[in-house]
Amino acid sequence: MLWAQIAKVWREKLRLLDTPSKTRRRFWELFSRKALAAKHSPIESDLAMLLTEAEAGTAAAGSVALVGAGPGDPELVTLKALRALQSADVVLYDHLVSPAIVDLARREAEKIPVGKRCYKPSCRQDHIVSLLVALASQGKRVVRLKGGDPMIFGRANEEIAALRAARIPIEIIPGVTAALGAAAGLQISLTAREKARRLQFITAHAHDGKLPCDIDWRALCDPRASTVVYMGVKTLELLAGRLLANGMDPSTPALLVERATCPDERHIFGTIENLVAKVARAEPSGPCVILIGKIFADALSLPRTQIKLETQPRALAP
Amino acid sequence: MLWAQIAKVWREKLRLLDTPSKTRRRFWELFSRKALAAKHSPIESDLAMLLTEAEAGTAAAGSVALVGAGPGDPELVTLKALRALQSADVVLYDHLVSPAIVDLARREAEKIPVGKRCYKPSCRQDHIVSLLVALASQGKRVVRLKGGDPMIFGRANEEIAALRAARIPIEIIPGVTAALGAAAGLQISLTAREKARRLQFITAHAHDGKLPCDIDWRALCDPRASTVVYMGVKTLELLAGRLLANGMDPSTPALLVERATCPDERHIFGTIENLVAKVARAEPSGPCVILIGKIFADALSLPRTQIKLETQPRALAP
Repeated sequence: MLWAQIAKVWREKLRLLDTPSKTRRRFWELFSRKALAAKHSPIESDLAMLLTEAEAGTAAAGSVALVGAGPGDPELVTLKALRALQSADVVLYDHLVSPAIVDLARREAEKIPVGKRCYKPSCRQDHIVSLLVALASQGKRVVRLKGGDPMIFGRANEEIAALRAARIPIEIIPGVTAALGAAAGLQISLTAREKARRLQFITAHAHDGKLPCDIDWRALCDPRASTVVYMGVKTLELLAGRLLANGMDPSTPALLVERATCPDERHIFGTIENLVAKVARAEPSGPCVILIGKIFADALSLPRTQIKLETQPRALAP
Repeated sequence: MLWAQIAKVWREKLRLLDTPSKTRRRFWELFSRKALAAKHSPIESDLAMLLTEAEAGTAAAGSVALVGAGPGDPELVTLKALRALQSADVVLYDHLVSPAIVDLARREAEKIPVGKRCYKPSCRQDHIVSLLVALASQGKRVVRLKGGDPMIFGRANEEIAALRAARIPIEIIPGVTAALGAAAGLQISLTAREKARRLQFITAHAHDGKLPCDIDWRALCDPRASTVVYMGVKTLELLAGRLLANGMDPSTPALLVERATCPDERHIFGTIENLVAKVARAEPSGPCVILIGKIFADALSLPRTQIKLETQPRALAP
């Protein structure tokens, strides 16, 4: 059988093997080259060899890593995130990610800001998704750098779905989410036996910039839970009003942490009744989380003994 | 006035200055030494000098860092956690923390396992707390290494309270909590617009080893929330039963992730109705989280395109 004739048979075989389209494309490129250069009729082992070569070729192709940048402090990036940044061809980063973290990327990497600022349609999610697919399809190693952790309020599912549809390899590198950075700075556990056994995270910012309409108010008002609100500054007044209307004790501690883990971290302490007014006066402009729950009373009453520890390595481990 | 006579006056002054007991103790040590060696009568500047010296002495004293070790993969330790481990004199670690992470500590550091295995009173929390205070009071830099993040189900509040009472400086270094490690491995976002706007973490393990009695079942059964259960394997049957009894749709996706982010990570997919039986057959022995919610249906239906990426640095950033 000649190379031209066998192509039809092999096309069917590849279909049965459920070979990804990218690998098939690469296979036929290699096949044409081989057929043109061949001095012998094709045999079965040629197929296997070409397929292995095609797979190896596409495995080295583009990929996307969704990487959590952590809450703000560049020291709170994971070793894995650092490695991904240092082997990236392109880094797409949210505007909430601090420049010091973007700077951890390989010097030669292209750095593209794709920040979604509240209420500004400047960089829409569908544009980001298209960009990810396009760059990875060009064979690039793309890092999608997101503030905190990519799997919490990061719309990662939309990006993952598009990348899967395009059969682009994905890796997710988790990060320290903002709530945990805030708790660390406050030195307050988000959970406590008997007192706060359930911890809940919500976003108080719907796609139209208003308070989401499908919030389970009863779950939020449970006095035995602690709640962390992401993206909640603009809708805080509405949120607090609804919580009080749904029976939350007005003296429930509520506090806002701005720029958690950054040198200019700021805390605004209050109750669910008076936090709105305090926040309005303080005019926070950085990323914020709002913590609500009886457990946070400790933040108001206990003396802090925090001292910035000397954490420079005394001696590097071998 | 003689040194012996002035002691009474200065004792009152220190009280008015609200000097910490540790500093006061150090002050009187220095005072005695000075008084014995002194060739002149004491003057006011002697007090100031001794106080500064006492404060400097205690500031250089012991400290405790509560450090999140992340979900399992040593690469998911933060840079800050690594630095703390590499400057520690002593590391107290939970049994859930993988040996590879404990090995990141300074070679000379003393490593003490304080693991709390389920239902085994071998290493009680009050013993750990005493140990932390004792070691730091000896002037040691102590790292308390906890699986995941220290502020989620880690009983950090008890350790923080004791350290504060002993006026020992504390630093909290947040980590990647297990739920986020599990979500990364599954490539499923824990939240989604319109579908899962509330994310809640609970522990299904009370201090007596039974299901906690104060769970808000309605909040857990909310079909628009996603739930992650920590320490839930032993009580899974009870938990699932109560959720179904409280109206949760039996077809709600539920899955267990064992040893998230470790090389032997395992997934057991099911529904809230059949997961118990599947888990019983699989007999997980490592740390587990259980994920419950409609959003996890994607984990069952979508093709995975995950490929272990080559994340070794191509070129180290400058």
